[in-house]
Order: sequence, then structure tokens, then C-alpha cells
Amino acid sequence: MSVYTPVTEAELAAWLGNYSVGTLAALEPIKAGIENTNYFVTTSQGRYVLTLFERLPAAELPFYLDLMAHLARHGIPCPAPIADLQDRYLQQLNGKPAALVTRLPGRSLDAPGERECGELGALLGRLHLAGRSYPGYLENPRGPKWWRIAAKEVMPFLKKDRSELLEKELRFQSEQRFPDLPRGPVHADLFRDNTLFEKGRISGVIDFYFAGVDCLLYDIAVCVNDWCLKDGAALDAGRTRALLAGCQGVRPFTPLEQAAWPAMLRAAALRFWLSRLHDYHLPRAGMLVHAHDPEHFRRILEDRVRAKAPWLA
Amino acid sequence: MSVYTPVTEAELAAWLGNYSVGTLAALEPIKAGIENTNYFVTTSQGRYVLTLFERLPAAELPFYLDLMAHLARHGIPCPAPIADLQDRYLQQLNGKPAALVTRLPGRSLDAPGERECGELGALLGRLHLAGRSYPGYLENPRGPKWWRIAAKEVMPFLKKDRSELLEKELRFQSEQRFPDLPRGPVHADLFRDNTLFEKGRISGVIDFYFAGVDCLLYDIAVCVNDWCLKDGAALDAGRTRALLAGCQGVRPFTPLEQAAWPAMLRAAALRFWLSRLHDYHLPRAGMLVHAHDPEHFRRILEDRVRAKAPWLA
Repeated sequence: MSVYTPVTEAELAAWLGNYSVGTLAALEPIKAGIENTNYFVTTSQGRYVLTLFERLPAAELPFYLDLMAHLARHGIPCPAPIADLQDRYLQQLNGKPAALVTRLPGRSLDAPGERECGELGALLGRLHLAGRSYPGYLENPRGPKWWRIAAKEVMPFLKKDRSELLEKELRFQSEQRFPDLPRGPVHADLFRDNTLFEKGRISGVIDFYFAGVDCLLYDIAVCVNDWCLKDGAALDAGRTRALLAGCQGVRPFTPLEQAAWPAMLRAAALRFWLSRLHDYHLPRAGMLVHAHDPEHFRRILEDRVRAKAPWLA
Repeated sequence: MSVYTPVTEAELAAWLGNYSVGTLAALEPIKAGIENTNYFVTTSQGRYVLTLFERLPAAELPFYLDLMAHLARHGIPCPAPIADLQDRYLQQLNGKPAALVTRLPGRSLDAPGERECGELGALLGRLHLAGRSYPGYLENPRGPKWWRIAAKEVMPFLKKDRSELLEKELRFQSEQRFPDLPRGPVHADLFRDNTLFEKGRISGVIDFYFAGVDCLLYDIAVCVNDWCLKDGAALDAGRTRALLAGCQGVRPFTPLEQAAWPAMLRAAALRFWLSRLHDYHLPRAGMLVHAHDPEHFRRILEDRVRAKAPWLA
């Protein structure tokens, strides 16, 4: 489980005196997540998530918290940061930067169907439109610059066929230029486990700590590569079409986006193959969770390179 | 019912294109409320209230909407305004200033007990603390200046004993000076019907359109005069003590507040007696709801003038 920095009930009860959320009723560590320390917090007022930031640069935290606040007040069901009595979202607790956000209801789905993929697509579209008025800027921290750094670090650990695939894909991606695709804040990690459903509706999109500004289409490709798989790595046509139709019902794709789609699916696969290779071969000291198998995204990348019809009509 | 400005489903569906809240599922006029036009709005994303402002000066609306947004992001369960795609809370619809806010769950209670009065007191305390960092300013629009204007207008309609009581109370209040009581944004109209409960907890405080900056103690007096009555106009000791204890658990009263309490209860009774007299004798053209009986608050005022022990220990 992922509690790097323990917090006792007495410590939290005192800390909550900085907020207007009532008195502490319950505190429960959250096992999921590998980047931060998270607790469920219940008070006399409501249900919250407490996050102690273990790794993100303090200077970047306002980008994430203000983005969540921005999206929440536009009606996107994302965690809303709670401001303290000095009107700040970011506090300190036990020596770490810390924030309290609303806890959203619902559960993630292991096997979403076409209907749920359509819901996700529509929500992504709304999230992207709402994000366009957000004034903050942070380049996608897992974008092309990071790919090159990470590739250099993991390359020595790879067998020949893997390293050739990686080099070939980096070369292919470096030849792609998307200066005219619509851009804005993207979640960039909206996998099934970061999406909560309740009564068939999306009740929450969570974990914005990989967000950044990038092509909106990239966000969609990340989702398709997780939500629309069948038989391991291939895309399921029905769910992929449903997700894309959901998006396009809110914001129709531009011709440039349609042309960029196959390369974007590959970029999204590359990013997660790289981060999983990195976590696998170069785990951070004190990391408490087993790394995901990198091979899953290698297979997805190979499928996207091969695929003839990635369904964006 | 209070729909001064009708809105059709087609008009609203088009207008919601300015927002990130999904597509319109249902539209239902709200019968309660006498100041504005209100609709319940359900979309593919969630449940909202649409308000068309019929009477409030447009220049004052940002004070109310920004105050609700401020309190909501501090964890106070009040309606949160939804920002449109241009990042504005205030829009226009059918020629009226209009805003979309979240719809809160729960129901108001006719007969709250000591436990519920204690909950209300604690929530008021938290609301007042959260409001202290709100930078907006609007003088309580139903404060002493307005009392004098309203009294002048209703005086010709009053029998001798009523007009004598009114004159005597205005004179008494004009001799009170509270420059050193804690001040801040107050709801100023938090009657039972503006407070929603769900599972024994306060799930919503609504209708902030009489809010303004005033003594925090005044807000508490307004509540006590509605929540803690027995036999018509007198105060119930148990519920009054519970409400005040709830407040003081969050923010202990200062000695000056304790001294000011009896006069504040009278001020809060005077304000509602005056507004009800005004609505009764000088109804606004086109007003769709019968005025409340002014005598209820006349009896409350007389009781507060007489009372020896208004329970603030």
C-alpha cells in the first residue's frame, strides 16, 4: 500500500482546524496509487481525500489544484480542492505539501461496454472544452522531451528487438509535427481505474497528477488504449467507435486530428510503455508498489503500428 | 408559483451549449421563492438550479455568485455556481441575468429538534469563518438604512399601537452601536426552508440573495428567531441553547457579542416585521405569491423586547 508519510488522527484533527469542513470522524489510508500518500477523510460535513505530495515539484502543484478547481466549477465531476481559512488550496502536513479535495462517489469498472465508453468520450469532450479557459500552463510532463530522457535510461536493459522497436518508434514520432491540433489541459492518465461510475453515469474522474497541456487528441488516444482493448492489445471496434462518437458529439474532430489519429495512438502507447519500462528497470527507492508489466504496452504499440483501421471516421 | 420569465426546453437546450454540463434531460419550474424565476434542470451530467434574476441590481449579482463559489470551495454545502465556457458565472437568458448553480440534495424540516439546531449552529459558525477570507463587499441590503426607508413607507398603513412599537424599536436600535462585533458575509435569511437535511446532516444551505456583510451575530439571531420558536413567538430554551452551542463550538462568542445578543434578536425581528409589512401593504406589481402575515414577526419582536433570558450564556 502507498502510505509513505503516516498521519495520525490527532495530527489530522488539529490540521483540519485550518478548514471549514467540520470535525474529524474517520481516517482511512488508501492503498491504490503509487505517487502520493492518500487518505480517505470523513468529517461532520462530508467525505474528502487527503493527499500528501511525495514527489511532484512543489512549484507544479498549483497547476494541478487550480485545474481541478477550474474543471469542478465548470461542472466536470472531478475532485474539488477545499480552500483553507487563509483561502489556499495547498497546505503543509507532516513536512509534506498537502491538499484536501472532495471525495467523489462511485466505483471504477473493469470491463466497460460501449455505453460506458460513449459516456467517457462525452465527458472527455466536456472536460476539454471546459479546460480551454484555464489560464495555467504546464507542459505535459510525460511528453516527447521526457520520452527521450526515459528511453536513454531504459535502453541498456532492453533486448535487441525491444530496443529496435523503441528506437524506430521514437524516430517515427520525432517526424510527426502537430502544431495545429487543438491543445489545452489534458488529464493524460484517464484509465479505467481513474474513472468512477454510479448508476451508469460517470460520477468522478480522479488523479490529475499527470495532467498537462498537450493535444486534446492525445488524451483521447490514452483512453482508447486502455478502455477499448480486446484480446490483449487490439482495439475493439464497437467500443472505440462509441468512445470517439461520444467525444465528437461534444467537439467534432478537425481534419488534422483525423489525419493525426493513428500516430497519436502510437504516441500514447509509447508513453506508457516507456514509463512502465522505467518503473520496472529503475524503480524509485522506497517505492511500495510492484511495477506494472511493461510488455502490455509494448504489445499495444506493436498493434497500433500494424493496425490499418483505428476507427476514426 | 414564481415563474416570471418562462424558459422553454428548446431555449434552455441551446443555452446549455455555453456550458460543460452535458445535454438537457429535464426542466421543471420551482414554485417556492418570490424574488426570482427558478427551474430545476437535469442534464446528462447532473442536477442544477437555473435562476433568472428578476429584481436584484445586476451590479450586485457578482457579490452573491462569487460568495457562493467562495463558500462552496471552502466545503460549505451551498449551491456552487457553474462557470460557462467563457469562465463567467453570470449569463443572460431570455433577456434576464441568469446563472446555473448545483442542486443540493435533501429536504427542509418544519420542526427541527435540538440536534438539528445544533447542526445549524455549527454550520453557521463554519460559514462565518469561511466567509472571512471573501474579498467581496456588499452592505446588508436589509440593514438599518433600509429599515428607515421601509418604516417611512409602511407607517401610514399601521394602527396606532403598531406604529408606536415600530417607532420605539427604531429609536432603540438607533441607540445601539456595534462597531467592534465580528463582521463578515452573512446569509441573513437562513430560515428553515433555506436549509436542507439528508440523513440527519445539513446537505445544503440555499438562497443567498439576501446576503451581505454585517455582524456575524445578526445572522445567528435571524436563525434563532425562526428555528427556535415555541408557542408562536417565544424562544424554546433547549433549541436556542443547542443552536448557540453549535456556533460556539466553532467560534466562541466575544464578550461584546454576548452583551449585544438581546438587541440583536430584536434587530433580526424588526427586519422581518418590516419586510413583511412592506410586502403586505405595498406589494410589487406582478408579485405572484401571497405575502406572509406580518403579525408573526410583530409578536416575535414584542417577545424579544419583553424577554429576560434570551439564552446566551
